[in-house]
Amino acid sequence: MADPTTFNQPVSGMVTPRFAGLATFMRLPHVPLEDAAGVDIGMIGVPWDGGTTNRPGPRHGPRQIRDMSAMIRQFHHALHISPFRIANCADLGDTSVNPTDTLDSLERVTDFYRKVRAAGIMPLTAGGDHLVSLPVLRALGEGRPVGMVHFDAHVDTHDSYFNGTKYTHGTPFRRAIEDGVLDPNRTIQIGIRGSLYGPDDMSWGLEQGIRVMEIEECFDLGSDRIMEEARRVVGDGPTYVSFDIDCLDPSYAPGTGTPEVGGFSTFQAQKMIRGLRGLNLVGADVVEVSPPFDPSGYTALAGATMMFELVCMMAEAVDRARA
Amino acid sequence: MADPTTFNQPVSGMVTPRFAGLATFMRLPHVPLEDAAGVDIGMIGVPWDGGTTNRPGPRHGPRQIRDMSAMIRQFHHALHISPFRIANCADLGDTSVNPTDTLDSLERVTDFYRKVRAAGIMPLTAGGDHLVSLPVLRALGEGRPVGMVHFDAHVDTHDSYFNGTKYTHGTPFRRAIEDGVLDPNRTIQIGIRGSLYGPDDMSWGLEQGIRVMEIEECFDLGSDRIMEEARRVVGDGPTYVSFDIDCLDPSYAPGTGTPEVGGFSTFQAQKMIRGLRGLNLVGADVVEVSPPFDPSGYTALAGATMMFELVCMMAEAVDRARA
Amino acid sequence: MADPTTFNQPVSGMVTPRFAGLATFMRLPHVPLEDAAGVDIGMIGVPWDGGTTNRPGPRHGPRQIRDMSAMIRQFHHALHISPFRIANCADLGDTSVNPTDTLDSLERVTDFYRKVRAAGIMPLTAGGDHLVSLPVLRALGEGRPVGMVHFDAHVDTHDSYFNGTKYTHGTPFRRAIEDGVLDPNRTIQIGIRGSLYGPDDMSWGLEQGIRVMEIEECFDLGSDRIMEEARRVVGDGPTYVSFDIDCLDPSYAPGTGTPEVGGFSTFQAQKMIRGLRGLNLVGADVVEVSPPFDPSGYTALAGATMMFELVCMMAEAVDRARA
Amino acid sequence: MADPTTFNQPVSGMVTPRFAGLATFMRLPHVPLEDAAGVDIGMIGVPWDGGTTNRPGPRHGPRQIRDMSAMIRQFHHALHISPFRIANCADLGDTSVNPTDTLDSLERVTDFYRKVRAAGIMPLTAGGDHLVSLPVLRALGEGRPVGMVHFDAHVDTHDSYFNGTKYTHGTPFRRAIEDGVLDPNRTIQIGIRGSLYGPDDMSWGLEQGIRVMEIEECFDLGSDRIMEEARRVVGDGPTYVSFDIDCLDPSYAPGTGTPEVGGFSTFQAQKMIRGLRGLNLVGADVVEVSPPFDPSGYTALAGATMMFELVCMMAEAVDRARA
Amino acid sequence: MADPTTFNQPVSGMVTPRFAGLATFMRLPHVPLEDAAGVDIGMIGVPWDGGTTNRPGPRHGPRQIRDMSAMIRQFHHALHISPFRIANCADLGDTSVNPTDTLDSLERVTDFYRKVRAAGIMPLTAGGDHLVSLPVLRALGEGRPVGMVHFDAHVDTHDSYFNGTKYTHGTPFRRAIEDGVLDPNRTIQIGIRGSLYGPDDMSWGLEQGIRVMEIEECFDLGSDRIMEEARRVVGDGPTYVSFDIDCLDPSYAPGTGTPEVGGFSTFQAQKMIRGLRGLNLVGADVVEVSPPFDPSGYTALAGATMMFELVCMMAEAVDRARA
Amino acid sequence: MADPTTFNQPVSGMVTPRFAGLATFMRLPHVPLEDAAGVDIGMIGVPWDGGTTNRPGPRHGPRQIRDMSAMIRQFHHALHISPFRIANCADLGDTSVNPTDTLDSLERVTDFYRKVRAAGIMPLTAGGDHLVSLPVLRALGEGRPVGMVHFDAHVDTHDSYFNGTKYTHGTPFRRAIEDGVLDPNRTIQIGIRGSLYGPDDMSWGLEQGIRVMEIEECFDLGSDRIMEEARRVVGDGPTYVSFDIDCLDPSYAPGTGTPEVGGFSTFQAQKMIRGLRGLNLVGADVVEVSPPFDPSGYTALAGATMMFELVCMMAEAVDRARA
Repeated sequence: MADPTTFNQPVSGMVTPRFAGLATFMRLPHVPLEDAAGVDIGMIGVPWDGGTTNRPGPRHGPRQIRDMSAMIRQFHHALHISPFRIANCADLGDTSVNPTDTLDSLERVTDFYRKVRAAGIMPLTAGGDHLVSLPVLRALGEGRPVGMVHFDAHVDTHDSYFNGTKYTHGTPFRRAIEDGVLDPNRTIQIGIRGSLYGPDDMSWGLEQGIRVMEIEECFDLGSDRIMEEARRVVGDGPTYVSFDIDCLDPSYAPGTGTPEVGGFSTFQAQKMIRGLRGLNLVGADVVEVSPPFDPSGYTALAGATMMFELVCMMAEAVDRARA
Repeated sequence: MADPTTFNQPVSGMVTPRFAGLATFMRLPHVPLEDAAGVDIGMIGVPWDGGTTNRPGPRHGPRQIRDMSAMIRQFHHALHISPFRIANCADLGDTSVNPTDTLDSLERVTDFYRKVRAAGIMPLTAGGDHLVSLPVLRALGEGRPVGMVHFDAHVDTHDSYFNGTKYTHGTPFRRAIEDGVLDPNRTIQIGIRGSLYGPDDMSWGLEQGIRVMEIEECFDLGSDRIMEEARRVVGDGPTYVSFDIDCLDPSYAPGTGTPEVGGFSTFQAQKMIRGLRGLNLVGADVVEVSPPFDPSGYTALAGATMMFELVCMMAEAVDRARA
Repeated sequence: MADPTTFNQPVSGMVTPRFAGLATFMRLPHVPLEDAAGVDIGMIGVPWDGGTTNRPGPRHGPRQIRDMSAMIRQFHHALHISPFRIANCADLGDTSVNPTDTLDSLERVTDFYRKVRAAGIMPLTAGGDHLVSLPVLRALGEGRPVGMVHFDAHVDTHDSYFNGTKYTHGTPFRRAIEDGVLDPNRTIQIGIRGSLYGPDDMSWGLEQGIRVMEIEECFDLGSDRIMEEARRVVGDGPTYVSFDIDCLDPSYAPGTGTPEVGGFSTFQAQKMIRGLRGLNLVGADVVEVSPPFDPSGYTALAGATMMFELVCMMAEAVDRARA
Repeated sequence: MADPTTFNQPVSGMVTPRFAGLATFMRLPHVPLEDAAGVDIGMIGVPWDGGTTNRPGPRHGPRQIRDMSAMIRQFHHALHISPFRIANCADLGDTSVNPTDTLDSLERVTDFYRKVRAAGIMPLTAGGDHLVSLPVLRALGEGRPVGMVHFDAHVDTHDSYFNGTKYTHGTPFRRAIEDGVLDPNRTIQIGIRGSLYGPDDMSWGLEQGIRVMEIEECFDLGSDRIMEEARRVVGDGPTYVSFDIDCLDPSYAPGTGTPEVGGFSTFQAQKMIRGLRGLNLVGADVVEVSPPFDPSGYTALAGATMMFELVCMMAEAVDRARA
Repeated sequence: MADPTTFNQPVSGMVTPRFAGLATFMRLPHVPLEDAAGVDIGMIGVPWDGGTTNRPGPRHGPRQIRDMSAMIRQFHHALHISPFRIANCADLGDTSVNPTDTLDSLERVTDFYRKVRAAGIMPLTAGGDHLVSLPVLRALGEGRPVGMVHFDAHVDTHDSYFNGTKYTHGTPFRRAIEDGVLDPNRTIQIGIRGSLYGPDDMSWGLEQGIRVMEIEECFDLGSDRIMEEARRVVGDGPTYVSFDIDCLDPSYAPGTGTPEVGGFSTFQAQKMIRGLRGLNLVGADVVEVSPPFDPSGYTALAGATMMFELVCMMAEAVDRARA
Repeated sequence: MADPTTFNQPVSGMVTPRFAGLATFMRLPHVPLEDAAGVDIGMIGVPWDGGTTNRPGPRHGPRQIRDMSAMIRQFHHALHISPFRIANCADLGDTSVNPTDTLDSLERVTDFYRKVRAAGIMPLTAGGDHLVSLPVLRALGEGRPVGMVHFDAHVDTHDSYFNGTKYTHGTPFRRAIEDGVLDPNRTIQIGIRGSLYGPDDMSWGLEQGIRVMEIEECFDLGSDRIMEEARRVVGDGPTYVSFDIDCLDPSYAPGTGTPEVGGFSTFQAQKMIRGLRGLNLVGADVVEVSPPFDPSGYTALAGATMMFELVCMMAEAVDRARA
């Protein structure tokens, strides 16, 4: 039985100021995967952006998110829970990557997440560009295609770029569906917007059964009804959450490579994540935080806050599963 | 008859990455005015800010807008149209200007736009400060005063500054009305806010018949009803659209010289521009993007996105006129 | 009797451009306290941040707010009043401070505000970190505990930090209540959000009778109904207003030390301040503007604009009191 | 007789921290010109950049220089003098300007400096762009052409720009020589570099007798020998010093409109200004500090430090003249 | 025979202000390679950084260099030549690249440069990361290994990274020597510094015969004697020049991915490039300008200035070859 | 006997990219002090700036220095040594601090360093403001006053500020001498410059026997002769090195609170530190790196590089002591 009194706790900012000490995710201890027995939720960095077709930088995301996550405290003011009291959480460090070789990197990341899954740890990932979601899904969806709640400005289901390149941050979910690790009928994409390459950009996804919710529909519905629909789509099955920081408006998250004006506020995003409550979550990621385009760190702060909202949802899922 | 298969098309980011190649408006070809036969809509830069009374910089606007407009793709996700398939568009380059002589610059710009009008090209201008709208209106409104949908934090109908200076970015629409090129009874100003010099700042405009809609009314009405009123005001006559980037809240558009907190979001602005659908448009501008106050380029991205929304409206107007 | 024709007037930007001249609050004359006979409202800087537990910088706030306040003009566009015509306002300069000694600084500031109160001047303070509100309240609430409308992301009623430190920017209102200068039953905290140290963070304040309104309730109610509740709480008694700039979302006010995503827009804040109309105001502050975290000055512009909204409310209160 | 015990003294940073109080030049009192009897050296801002042909911004220079000049203390470590003990110095505020009218501005500035000269005050000016030196010279050189030590990357003796514009920041010294207020035979230009418009850019100046010292010669000679030559050129006559901040390398002074790589370090500039010791100085300026291109303020700090070096030289000249 | 009166000339900043018009290299006309008959020197962008092992961004280099190169004029102040009068120069645009596929990109770039060479055009390249030099050398050194003057903080002759990756920006010159397109005995590396992975980092290069000159030796020798040695090493044979912007100190060129403190000033670099005079140049590049790490553009300005120094040397080489 | 094969080694950037993994000093393992048996040199952060009289921020120094120190590799290119092969090094984390209580913080830091000294570990500290050196010296100099090589723009031997405050970053060395832990006759201050509060600023130090070397003398002597003098002053006794980052020119180190133009280049500083070779070192610090004033991290990179130069000197001292 899990003993909450043994769970890792963040360093408190009332004892040690937030700027002090090495930066880890939410000031949790750094626990290498090989020492992670008993860990329920592992926060993992994937410092890689080899799938980026335009402005690079998310390879630096995990470090800046760790730094800014020192701002996060332990208790959720609105949900009235402390995720760190109901699940044992740790910073598992970064996966191995190869910044100049895409296929090599995809393998390294999938390998790591296979071990994470095998260890019974639910992963909360900080990317990296959105191609990072593919190797994670390959590990988590192996043998059981997962559903997905996907917050993004872009559908990321293109076939290829630049005369045949199959692996970019615009293609991960097409590959994941082709690989049978993602169930399109249990997938919803929320916040889609921005000019398109052409009228058929979304056709493939729609044909597979993905529920695409454009930003206009989102703003018409509001956060609560968006999430009703999301819960309807994903149902009770194992569900992954992918949060591309560019679902937020660039005024809230300038540090990203493919900004599209007219997006969500952070408050709307917080409300939507809280709408995941009760789902059968198996993992989540926050991707496309690109520090070179936001030295201030506020995009990373938004990302860290979303990770905190997500870890609350995941901790409850862990707790339910344990019961 | 126009043959859409011959229309200029933007370079696609799926073939050539967006950071590659010379920067033109929306990756369209650069076509000098003398070679522009067959062009329906001309995007034009007016790199000039000699009318600025406070923080300078919009002279650098056209170049940064061109750079950031590489983010724009070809198809409008919500309107489901490709403006470049229904109108022939081109980057006509920048007008001639004189950074140290206001009157000389006004003449140079008016001359250019007279030629544009004579060539049957509808202009979409990237400023420059707001005084730039005056020489454009002098060309477009010559012989037929135009109506105007004007998005701005400021009314820009002052009489003079600094003991008698008649030409500043706070005076263009007073001059345009005096010159008979702008019809005040078919003019609406949307988003007006910020502290005033005195109680009479808006009196002259109101007396001429301008419909002034302050931000409080705007937020009460919402985008759809704002635009109902705008369409009522301008009616069927020839209509110009002037979009001062400072109508947006500074959090969305920090790169401008006279920021006023409490403004529109980019999404609200996008919705409003879409509300221009069906109007008899004769031209439009996006002004007051000031790169020195936003090296990140996000203000220019907002400006480029508004230009994309505008070119969709203008392309439909071209198409209707052709029918 | 007060003679409005003798009131200090800001330098007009139509005569002297806003970037010219020494920077004072809203371009008012600088009047040392000893020469301030006849001044109704004094704008005062407290350049001190010795209570900051995390990211420092608000000591630089008054200077940057002065600089950006040159953007403010004289007349309120929505309220249709000119505060400078109904109350005599001045920039009283900065208080004395000691950047390396907290207790010494608290005394210096209290001393200054005692003199301000004795001179019959209503103070509008630009901080400084939030601990600055404590010495101000000690002067203003001496002998008559004041009520307070408090806009903030944080309750700032902690007991101590770092093993016993009683004076930080997280403790001022607990000290003020203990000192009997702040009436908790006439205090409302608006916009509270962000992760907490634990479930009991707000308990002490609630037990004292403070009305805590979390951001979720705020967004549900809207500005008008929030302020109805605020007016109900503070009633007719003497009331102080404390505006922590971090009540705003970081996209509107990045220059602050403890940003929490998911906050108010500037427009919402403006509307809320206007909801103070008619209250028995005795002073106000705008704190936690931290220039090193926003060299652009936009956070300071937001702060200056809130000061303008506040001075309108305060000028009316002065005028009523005079009648 | 001047009584040094009555001279204005800067506020000390050991008593009042440097970030406190209104920003004036070197924390001296602000003394309007009409109250300046007894002032020997007046520091004056000219917030104007209407002569700028490329990147604008120096209109904001005086305010940022005032802000950063709070870093300056009272005593020169190497020269072992306190300028404020041997001459009575004050901040005279900014001149009147018209940001949108060049000729009007030139007149306003000349008028102000005529009064300064008539009051027996030696001016130390903070620009503004380099065209500002022209109206200053028109006042100071009236009736007695002055010599000049001119530190700059550019000769600024062009005839006209943009098809006939005579007044730009590239033409002031040609106009001054034509007006008979600057003696070309007693003028030396130090640090000239950067690509030229053509082989004749310097011809006119050389024909008038100006001594042009390009950067290559400067680096070969070193600061001491450069200044030997400068003293030889200007001799004993009345001499003006014009310090364009772009004489510094952009790594030391990025905040300027026409940066040229390969320039002086600040230390070399300090040494050169100290080489002015003993000259018959009548005034000096530091121009082309452009805050929008350096929000950090370091360019303004360099400018303020050069002003401190200059005021030491000027104070000694005042003292000698008094003896 | 070449007719200089037909050579492309940059747009003059005395006629059209530098901020106006589309950005091309040094304001030269954009001439696609297929129309480039008669062009002697082609400026080419390679917007690619797929070889970057640490901080990405040089893919954005060509566009920012074009923008900042508007600062360059036509005539070299110290050499007294106008390169554009003695050689016909043009902006040939950017090569095709694939941001997510290294081998594909190497082929695309080599193909382009083979055509450039076949057209008799000498290329002056703006990178891109340093791996870009490899495909250029493969085209230029095919059949005749070239010598090289290489300015850099790093030797870039590593064998592989990340468990076997052969193509990174730390390996181009090892690959070039292995491919027989670069002659190590006619290669000199200037400015080498920074901590090393181990004592053998330079061994391979030294064994091949490369002359490695560390920064300490450089500062001891001075620019003139460095270049004497460089000329001795490369002799009369065909010689390539590769200028990695990180040879400059980060204070002069912060916008780069692998900064090493303690480097050259821009002036020292200018002097060294002038020391190439008379060499048998066949091409040159300026690489590793990374705009995301320097939004100010000053690194790109340094790069553009080095390109101007290089084009002067190359134009003379063209002229000599023509004679 | 120490066994070098067991020494901690930095993670190599050829295996794991530098942006990956948690940030520790030079990618060394983090070893808490209680587990540090066998560690020779401990890198320690002191995240505190409570002694700062002007611009705050060095409390954030250790974290940013750790981040940027990922740029450092293992082998010194010019000295040809690997410090990590001759001494066992580790990151000992940060000391405990209290951001709002100076005296409490001084005690916490002294306590930590007493334990470090007791453990036989030589400390290399990353500050923090310069007051941090005092508690370190109190631990290291207890019972044996140490000599000091002090690189700085300021002498930091003032008596008090703000009417009696004894502990600021302008007073540490006066307190250390009074406490008998620093030997003034074996202390040299290198690089002193900037305006002074008065002629007596240096008197006290000189009277105690400190050798003060102003920047003018430094530039006259050059790095080698400066260090000859330094070695003469400190002799064979135990010697501390304190490196205030503001000894560097602000162009090399803008991220600091009290910048003074006209300072050292990083190369000069590197050469000077190498001149410490052979001294009897007992510890060192690098202080006053203030991240809020340099989000780019280049100041921290300069600081990290100086730490690398210092650890080379310290490792040799460890090795000699072991022999």
